[in-house]
Amino acid sequence: MQIEKEILALNAYDPQASKPGNERTHHAVERRLTAFGRGAVLFYREPIEAVSAEGVWIQGADGRRYLDVYNNVPSVGHCHPRVVEAIRQQVGTLNIHTRYLNAVVDSYAERLLSTLPAAIANVVLTCTGSEANDLALRVAQAATGGTGFIVSEMAYHGNTAAVTEVSPSSRPGRPLAAHVRTVPAPDSYRKPDEYPGQAMAAAVTAAIADMTRKGIRFAGMIADTIFSSDGVHADPPGLLAPVIAAVHAHGGLFIADEVQPGFGRTGDALWGFERHGIVPDIVTMGKPMGNGFPMGGMALGPDLLAAFNARDKYFNTFGGNPVAAAAGLAVLDVIREEGLIENARDVGRYLQDGLREIANRHLAIGEIRGAGLFIGLEFVTDRESKIPAPETASALINGLRERGILIGAAGAYGNTLKIRPPLCFGKEHADVFIEQCDAVLARISQ
Amino acid sequence: MQIEKEILALNAYDPQASKPGNERTHHAVERRLTAFGRGAVLFYREPIEAVSAEGVWIQGADGRRYLDVYNNVPSVGHCHPRVVEAIRQQVGTLNIHTRYLNAVVDSYAERLLSTLPAAIANVVLTCTGSEANDLALRVAQAATGGTGFIVSEMAYHGNTAAVTEVSPSSRPGRPLAAHVRTVPAPDSYRKPDEYPGQAMAAAVTAAIADMTRKGIRFAGMIADTIFSSDGVHADPPGLLAPVIAAVHAHGGLFIADEVQPGFGRTGDALWGFERHGIVPDIVTMGKPMGNGFPMGGMALGPDLLAAFNARDKYFNTFGGNPVAAAAGLAVLDVIREEGLIENARDVGRYLQDGLREIANRHLAIGEIRGAGLFIGLEFVTDRESKIPAPETASALINGLRERGILIGAAGAYGNTLKIRPPLCFGKEHADVFIEQCDAVLARISQ
Repeated sequence: MQIEKEILALNAYDPQASKPGNERTHHAVERRLTAFGRGAVLFYREPIEAVSAEGVWIQGADGRRYLDVYNNVPSVGHCHPRVVEAIRQQVGTLNIHTRYLNAVVDSYAERLLSTLPAAIANVVLTCTGSEANDLALRVAQAATGGTGFIVSEMAYHGNTAAVTEVSPSSRPGRPLAAHVRTVPAPDSYRKPDEYPGQAMAAAVTAAIADMTRKGIRFAGMIADTIFSSDGVHADPPGLLAPVIAAVHAHGGLFIADEVQPGFGRTGDALWGFERHGIVPDIVTMGKPMGNGFPMGGMALGPDLLAAFNARDKYFNTFGGNPVAAAAGLAVLDVIREEGLIENARDVGRYLQDGLREIANRHLAIGEIRGAGLFIGLEFVTDRESKIPAPETASALINGLRERGILIGAAGAYGNTLKIRPPLCFGKEHADVFIEQCDAVLARISQ
Repeated sequence: MQIEKEILALNAYDPQASKPGNERTHHAVERRLTAFGRGAVLFYREPIEAVSAEGVWIQGADGRRYLDVYNNVPSVGHCHPRVVEAIRQQVGTLNIHTRYLNAVVDSYAERLLSTLPAAIANVVLTCTGSEANDLALRVAQAATGGTGFIVSEMAYHGNTAAVTEVSPSSRPGRPLAAHVRTVPAPDSYRKPDEYPGQAMAAAVTAAIADMTRKGIRFAGMIADTIFSSDGVHADPPGLLAPVIAAVHAHGGLFIADEVQPGFGRTGDALWGFERHGIVPDIVTMGKPMGNGFPMGGMALGPDLLAAFNARDKYFNTFGGNPVAAAAGLAVLDVIREEGLIENARDVGRYLQDGLREIANRHLAIGEIRGAGLFIGLEFVTDRESKIPAPETASALINGLRERGILIGAAGAYGNTLKIRPPLCFGKEHADVFIEQCDAVLARISQ
């Protein structure tokens, strides 16, 4: 429980603990908590009021601009002119549901499917990744006749009732639902294993055996292929191959939740699962899909969708509206034309190299890991004991905020910095980030 | 089962039954079913390809324009310039989640809450009505410690796994989940009752007693206050007063699902529940909230939200983003400044009067009912037997489509036309609609 409290307190505003120093901020916080409830979460001890944003920068009401190293929603850059223009054009032309035909919607669906393995030939469009995952669970249930799901120990897959049940990180300290089993995420730092894929496959097989013993039929496994909320675990490439084999051997489906790694973030390819050389049964997507326009989706094989539709219909009023489709097309265009996958790879590597360099003098850095522009920076009290140091992560997060850099944390101990900037993040931004990390860590260790 | 099939076939394209006559439409349908699956639902035997829309009109790729009497999402009118401009302005300025402060978001929350009873002082913003209802169910569970819900017999509350369980109309022919009970919607035509509110309250009390006997603790009732999918039942005003009293007497919460009646549609007030003089515990909203921009919300008393937050946190990445807030503010502005509630009342009354006039010569019209611009037009084989005539509703829907008017059906028998145009629908549009109904019904009865 202590650790959980620390994670929450890491970079959240706590109305009990402090009052914002700035009068305008104090007033804005009061408005927020009055309308949205005292439990509404704001980042930072001194919350930030944003007034505009562009590329990797957020402009604060305090007159400062902040480097966004945290926000994976405006994935091709805040207010990207191409996406903005696509939305502006379409929203004045037509915004309607999918029970009428519209060419923009079909063009988007075809374009999106063309980026996926050939077997994944159908798509259902939703408004959020949560809705996509909620639906994917039901498809897996319909296809297998099972109800049991396996997830990683700190998985987060969204916020609906059904999806919260397969999101242990949303239910700290509470028992899992009877139909859910967890397996440890791969962890190159704390659980180094010569064959982490085989270890995970064995854990999956054991979890299936356990649910079978309890009379629960296995439906599938849902995994974020970069294990973000477990602390960002991307390596080794290919580790999910034996895992999906184990899932299939027991008649289950593998759902790749691409809300976090998808749309080029890992620097390898458009989709995180490609890093592992697997073809999932269902692919779900969300956050970066429309660069902030609310949209999500579930892509899958036609047979699976037909099996679901044989019993259930699914209709999402706003899902797949032409404005979302136009935004989604623009995002795919920008990723390709601006070479953002390559940029994620190159700048990600540059960032990791730079962080390794400063790690030589900051012994609190336990490990630097990740893929592309999704990097985990884990802090420990010392490298020998590897005792998690969430207080160091917290001090760094708040120190960086003071220096105009926005970032958050992840992982079971809350001691891993989640480095996840918009994909247009350049080496010049990486330099600023590394330099400031260096400076704040030097101050902390004094 | 026969009736269910008829409902589905009423105005849905059936790939097995017919090929579109138009080559372009045929090609567009093929694209759609190839990408979205053969089970994707399109309206009409000859689906419509929309290219643009404005006010109450949808422009087809066939060069025709269609009067939209069906679509309650673009509630203040398709592509309303005020809403379009608000989105265009904000999407180029800032589009971010709610963990940073932003004045537009707080202004919207305050403005929305100012339209609700004083006790309903908190709001949580989501992306869809489904997400709002999914969350509302969880809030009711947390507040009461119960799991049992009561809904109307043909209720529809959304598409998540949890919400589908309380949406009997989405599960035709399948048994209800163990924690769900239904009560008949009020029905002035088929079940006239001097005291329909008391009758419903008695049914609610009996349902609670039944679930209690089975060891299920009552959590609450969720109801669309105009009972849209039950066939549009608005009268008598006040009927929900004894119902909510019964719910409260047994410790449950009353959730008013305003996705359909909300935002002025009933012509009485901004919210459907106001027609019944009640103060719900939770109000959920969706479709018309952003005139097509994906947004939803749940408003409730601070104590209820705090009770939920004591155990669970809820965060919705896209929910309450500044673009949604800007769209939502523009919608509230337009409703007020254009007098759309009054328009819904006046044009709705004019429409009902006009339909009553043609009902003198079309004996298939069994009843005309509703509130504001939400009107049900029920068809029967004859007025004596009141045998439902879904085939007449279907013929009318398809006949109107041929004449450039878009409309759908509702109710357990699929025999009730659901008249639900954008709220800027004028008397001139009502005249067109009535005249064409008259003409098609004359042709049908020949």
